[in-house]
Amino acid sequence: MNSLDQIQIILIETSLPANIGSAARAMKTMGLSNLRLVSPLNPIDEQAQALAAGAKDVLDNAQIFDSFEQAIADCQLVIGTSARLRHLQNSLIEPRDCGKLAVERAEQGKVAIVFGRERVGLTNEELLKCHYHLNFPTNPDYGSLNLAMAVQLASYEVRMAWLELQKNPQIRPLVEEKDYPNTEALEHFFNHTERLYKQLGFIRNDAVMLKLRRLYQRAELETNELNLLRGMLTSVEKQIGNK
Amino acid sequence: MNSLDQIQIILIETSLPANIGSAARAMKTMGLSNLRLVSPLNPIDEQAQALAAGAKDVLDNAQIFDSFEQAIADCQLVIGTSARLRHLQNSLIEPRDCGKLAVERAEQGKVAIVFGRERVGLTNEELLKCHYHLNFPTNPDYGSLNLAMAVQLASYEVRMAWLELQKNPQIRPLVEEKDYPNTEALEHFFNHTERLYKQLGFIRNDAVMLKLRRLYQRAELETNELNLLRGMLTSVEKQIGNK
Repeated sequence: MNSLDQIQIILIETSLPANIGSAARAMKTMGLSNLRLVSPLNPIDEQAQALAAGAKDVLDNAQIFDSFEQAIADCQLVIGTSARLRHLQNSLIEPRDCGKLAVERAEQGKVAIVFGRERVGLTNEELLKCHYHLNFPTNPDYGSLNLAMAVQLASYEVRMAWLELQKNPQIRPLVEEKDYPNTEALEHFFNHTERLYKQLGFIRNDAVMLKLRRLYQRAELETNELNLLRGMLTSVEKQIGNK
Repeated sequence: MNSLDQIQIILIETSLPANIGSAARAMKTMGLSNLRLVSPLNPIDEQAQALAAGAKDVLDNAQIFDSFEQAIADCQLVIGTSARLRHLQNSLIEPRDCGKLAVERAEQGKVAIVFGRERVGLTNEELLKCHYHLNFPTNPDYGSLNLAMAVQLASYEVRMAWLELQKNPQIRPLVEEKDYPNTEALEHFFNHTERLYKQLGFIRNDAVMLKLRRLYQRAELETNELNLLRGMLTSVEKQIGNK
């Protein structure tokens, strides 16, 4: 299987259908074909079709989701685009590293690259669900990349990394030996943790879960680690008599 | 002087003003500001202004030329975008190398990155006047990059190379010691050569000048070499009694 087929471009609440059409064309020129739309604000129109040009298939096959969570549920790695926000410092990557990371991880599971709304980008809640945050090294005096242009740049770097991997298969990284949980499994874990520690009286506000999410997203929990953590939760539950 | 200010983005006979507007925005997000238009087929309209968004200044300051030759006359290095054409094999570069080359050479003179018409690109005659030919590593099944998207990708790689040079000024190449002629001086030389060798009866068709152009463009003649070649022409002329 071509690892490019594992990569999902996700557009959240896009307001201009033209941008969706242009994004589809941008993707296809770089060999990407999986487009997911979360609650687009306006339906695909003729202009979007026209702008998609020879990538009408990408547009026609786009999957539509009601929520961001559903759109990333089957993805093992989620990269969200974002301005350079201080609180994301540890997880910020540039397009080139994003391309490499996406292609490496696409060897073993689905990878999402997520683009937010035209004016306001991704919400803090959405950013928190991303393992990495893609930041474009734009002009500090004017950094306003058009949405489809951002998709073009990210797709280009994915293709460059993929071409590099085709040329040098020996640089294929060791990650193949690891196994990563998908977003749904991670969410179960977070919900489980929150439920238990609320019951224990430890969690009284949102700050704790925010910190835990940040920590584990950044660490990119492997499946065996997640199983370990879930085992720990269960062991506590048993002790306090939930089971 | 910021070397990004030496880089000229040149659009030839663009048919859609919208593409010019989007190209202006794409340039500015990457810190480029010099836009040159050669005989645009339609005037800048409201849609182009709207798409330029915060880069209206780039659009408003665009210089308009009647011919490609005039637009590149003051440039020392000319890079033309092109499909992967066999006869250009030796001069093809990818966007990443284009970025590096443009930034290196911008240290000493003006650099042009040239984009052709939406449907048919650059003519063979125009390609021949370019030292290098930029080829985007697109999907072989669908390589149709929108014009403004191509400007975005090229501008992005210019910025990446420029940022790299800011971080590591010691990688500043040795080219600073060299001096390159501008396109106008090269044209004088080609015209001089053609005139003389036609007079000598050696040049009877276009093939000779095509080959010579290809050779010297590829070699990127330095100023002292050009002076040498012109001196040789003059010495022949003296011998045959033109002077």
